[in-house]
Amino acid sequence: MSELRTPPKLKPGTLRVIPLGGLGDVGRNSTAFEIDGEIALVDCGVLFPEETHPGVDLILPALDHLSDRLDDIVALVLTHGHEDHIGAVPYLLKMRPDVPIYGSKLTLALVAGKLREHRLRDFKLFDVAEGDVVRAGGYEFEFFAVNHSIPDALAVAIRTKAGVALHTGDFKMDQLPLDGRLTDLRGFARLGAKGVDLFLVDSTNAETPGFTTHEVDLEPALDRVFQAANGKLIVACFASHVHRVQQVLDQAVKHGRKAVYVGRSMVRNMSTARDLGYLRVPAGVMIELKDLGKYADDEVVIISTGSQGEPLAALSRIANQEHQHIEVGPGDTVLLASSLIPGNENSVGRVINGLTRLGANVVHKGNALVHVSGHASAGELLYCYNLIQPKNVMPVHGEVRHLVANGKLAARTGIPEENIVIAEDGVVVDLAKGRARIVGRVDASYIFVDGTTVGDVSEAVNDRLILGEEGFISIVTVVSTHNREVVSGPEISARGFAEDPSVFDEVHRQIYEALEQALRDGVDDTRRLQQVVRRTIGAWVSRKLRRRPMIVPVVITT
Amino acid sequence: MSELRTPPKLKPGTLRVIPLGGLGDVGRNSTAFEIDGEIALVDCGVLFPEETHPGVDLILPALDHLSDRLDDIVALVLTHGHEDHIGAVPYLLKMRPDVPIYGSKLTLALVAGKLREHRLRDFKLFDVAEGDVVRAGGYEFEFFAVNHSIPDALAVAIRTKAGVALHTGDFKMDQLPLDGRLTDLRGFARLGAKGVDLFLVDSTNAETPGFTTHEVDLEPALDRVFQAANGKLIVACFASHVHRVQQVLDQAVKHGRKAVYVGRSMVRNMSTARDLGYLRVPAGVMIELKDLGKYADDEVVIISTGSQGEPLAALSRIANQEHQHIEVGPGDTVLLASSLIPGNENSVGRVINGLTRLGANVVHKGNALVHVSGHASAGELLYCYNLIQPKNVMPVHGEVRHLVANGKLAARTGIPEENIVIAEDGVVVDLAKGRARIVGRVDASYIFVDGTTVGDVSEAVNDRLILGEEGFISIVTVVSTHNREVVSGPEISARGFAEDPSVFDEVHRQIYEALEQALRDGVDDTRRLQQVVRRTIGAWVSRKLRRRPMIVPVVITT
Repeated sequence: MSELRTPPKLKPGTLRVIPLGGLGDVGRNSTAFEIDGEIALVDCGVLFPEETHPGVDLILPALDHLSDRLDDIVALVLTHGHEDHIGAVPYLLKMRPDVPIYGSKLTLALVAGKLREHRLRDFKLFDVAEGDVVRAGGYEFEFFAVNHSIPDALAVAIRTKAGVALHTGDFKMDQLPLDGRLTDLRGFARLGAKGVDLFLVDSTNAETPGFTTHEVDLEPALDRVFQAANGKLIVACFASHVHRVQQVLDQAVKHGRKAVYVGRSMVRNMSTARDLGYLRVPAGVMIELKDLGKYADDEVVIISTGSQGEPLAALSRIANQEHQHIEVGPGDTVLLASSLIPGNENSVGRVINGLTRLGANVVHKGNALVHVSGHASAGELLYCYNLIQPKNVMPVHGEVRHLVANGKLAARTGIPEENIVIAEDGVVVDLAKGRARIVGRVDASYIFVDGTTVGDVSEAVNDRLILGEEGFISIVTVVSTHNREVVSGPEISARGFAEDPSVFDEVHRQIYEALEQALRDGVDDTRRLQQVVRRTIGAWVSRKLRRRPMIVPVVITT
Repeated sequence: MSELRTPPKLKPGTLRVIPLGGLGDVGRNSTAFEIDGEIALVDCGVLFPEETHPGVDLILPALDHLSDRLDDIVALVLTHGHEDHIGAVPYLLKMRPDVPIYGSKLTLALVAGKLREHRLRDFKLFDVAEGDVVRAGGYEFEFFAVNHSIPDALAVAIRTKAGVALHTGDFKMDQLPLDGRLTDLRGFARLGAKGVDLFLVDSTNAETPGFTTHEVDLEPALDRVFQAANGKLIVACFASHVHRVQQVLDQAVKHGRKAVYVGRSMVRNMSTARDLGYLRVPAGVMIELKDLGKYADDEVVIISTGSQGEPLAALSRIANQEHQHIEVGPGDTVLLASSLIPGNENSVGRVINGLTRLGANVVHKGNALVHVSGHASAGELLYCYNLIQPKNVMPVHGEVRHLVANGKLAARTGIPEENIVIAEDGVVVDLAKGRARIVGRVDASYIFVDGTTVGDVSEAVNDRLILGEEGFISIVTVVSTHNREVVSGPEISARGFAEDPSVFDEVHRQIYEALEQALRDGVDDTRRLQQVVRRTIGAWVSRKLRRRPMIVPVVITT
């Protein structure tokens, strides 16, 4: 990948594309477009940190890149309502509250809730639908329906002086969608016939051969689960997967079970989806959690969050027998109707084992067809390339391996290698005269949300990694630089060590003598005395305990 | 699962089975058998900790259960040479160096190397082969060939007064094994015809329907990779997978490449396998790493460790451009001919992305048939149950979900539910009069190897989890209980915080005043003064920073 290299000054009439996140990572999707001094953003999502970033709450796109250009932003376009596409909007709006935001009805409803949680006001939301054409500054946006694992998702065509860019957002091409809302291939074809200069396309499943299974094809498996279940039945899925919940509600009616939502986000999102008409709730099927006790086990289906093994979500608490309302036991059935996001294998495994240990029959994608992906597989992507025949291709949304795999698919449909741009976050791509080229790279490092801090917390994270692996030792000593003697201590407190505390008695004396020696030698500077302590115990601990803990020497001079 | 309940005193003539590890976890496999005061162990392996145990080196079976019975151990039988079956042997021998150990030639060769590394001497190794019958105390062991992902693996029949137990170890039933050494189904059938009272059977793949693909069926995919590779070619696999390496060497000869081992364990294990005749090394194919530079890229295949993304192994260092001899770039090919052990997804993903970023074409089980499992799938297990028709079944080796799935397979072949024992580590199973029953449960918690300590380090691990997530704050104050005043400090040092250190200025004053107040109130006990500090800063930090760090108050009284 290209080196960090300042891009040239942007020429008038040239469209510049800078991925601020989501290219090289699955999450924090956000792409900045700029032409003639005006910036348009597509999506502004978060990345959920893995164990390499302990204690970090969220990871944001490289929004710092925009900090001195905030007034040049003419639009933020949101393709759909998933966290990895909208989760960072509040952090952008804290920088500038009145950024004009365009998105579909459901997307904006989810964003609005989020903004209120962050106590933001005076935000500007403009709802759009497939077929709409909207102008913002020099940009013209045309929106196209796409099918995904959340309703009301949109692709956006971006018309500028420099040409037409088409951004798919997240999408798949289910030809039998539950809501009848197809990915608008006819529209893509029309656009392609007129000419698409730059095609930014979802790479998530580019490594997966063939075609993503129809959502509706889950029905037989779901039906079998409901048929076989004669005790409690719990279905866990993503709190945003309206269509999955729709299928569960329909099965509930068919098999004479009531339904109840468990988990805050499930309750909130599904009421939003229902109010906006995306979820058809059959009359009389829903009950309140507080009334659960009034029904027999086989009269209710519990629709729950926690399908990724999130420790605080309903399903984990049920598996740990820590849920205040719900227990499972022999004869009960738990259905994980969800994907397994890489990195969550251990936590999901713990939930499956916990439920199995309690005697429940656990059905999951590993042993039944109870989940299909929300992203287009290789076969579908080939259709797109052939239908649109774009001049240039820039794979988006995925790790490098996925971007590269997607680029290879484009090449196999005849798009010239030199027009396929594999760019990671921060790589600057200019579109001019129908040609897209990498012209440089800007810093697009992670921005962490860590407790109350937003920004570069890599030092804190690094400290926590050391502390988590090795623990720490603090050594407190009071010395008199006047009498050149140790007055009190050293007092050693260590945490994260398996060894018996008495193991430190041996080094206690060494530190004492090293300090006395230094004092006799006339060392009276606290920092240098602390260095003496650090060197003494550091050498000892690595030799004796084969560890490299964090060492915190405190020397107080009186 | 059954509660922790002390089992009844063992009756004469009853065989007691206690899993010390590997039942409820993938790893630390070890099972203890006892009859008439004599103990026999099958396997003694390690479990590699996941991120829930930061800083822990290894996890051992519940060997503490044996600590006061060491002289009653008449035999340790090792089924094969994988770490999760032999890795803990040195720790057992540190408790008693002369435990008689039985295993196949290759298994013992790998164990001996391990024991020497641990500077153990005077150990007793007895090599056995399929067909051998060995007596130790009241036990008679008969060994059967089984096919697995390491050569020379054995199943063991254990004859005692209480009846016959058959323990498969790890196995699969490849009907076209590369070395022609079949799992001895004929022997299993003979044993079954005479009657098997207790069948302990590998559950690892019990959830996987159908049959495990033949090892030999990897050949076409390997051949294609060698055919297509015109630059460097690196093949990574487990350092113990002799048959996989054999296939790679054979391909090397076919495609006119020399071969070189990279990674200490690969070099060591393959020379052992060659010396013992398990690996046929074609004449003139191997070269030394130091001579790599003398050959063109397409003249050599590099056989490397690191297929699980282990950060220090060769492949990770190559992916991070940190390997001193090997670089990869555009046009090069890397083949991961290995499984993906759950929990390693992120690290393997990082390696694949790193290599892809460098331009290499990465082939792995996700995009080609370049790995098959070493364990029997559901279809094979059904054959075993029908062939052996055991009176009682005890699934071993796997998480609870796998044990339960295996039990269900047994039931489908007609074995009565009440004769299928689902037991996790520590569950005590007695075999008497042809019936196996759970009679209690003993503690079989993890034993950690953590730096220099072996034993219960859960407190240290727990501390490190807190430190890793939340960091710590130490507050040092010198007080005079005589003058009832603060002499110096509080001095606050925090680590793992993203916030600017000045954030603590605000609480500094609060602590000072709280201490002065306490001193004025006549508090002179250091512990109570430290409580004052802890309470003050604890309340502040959780309110102000929304964190729960470890708090280390040090109050020194003068």
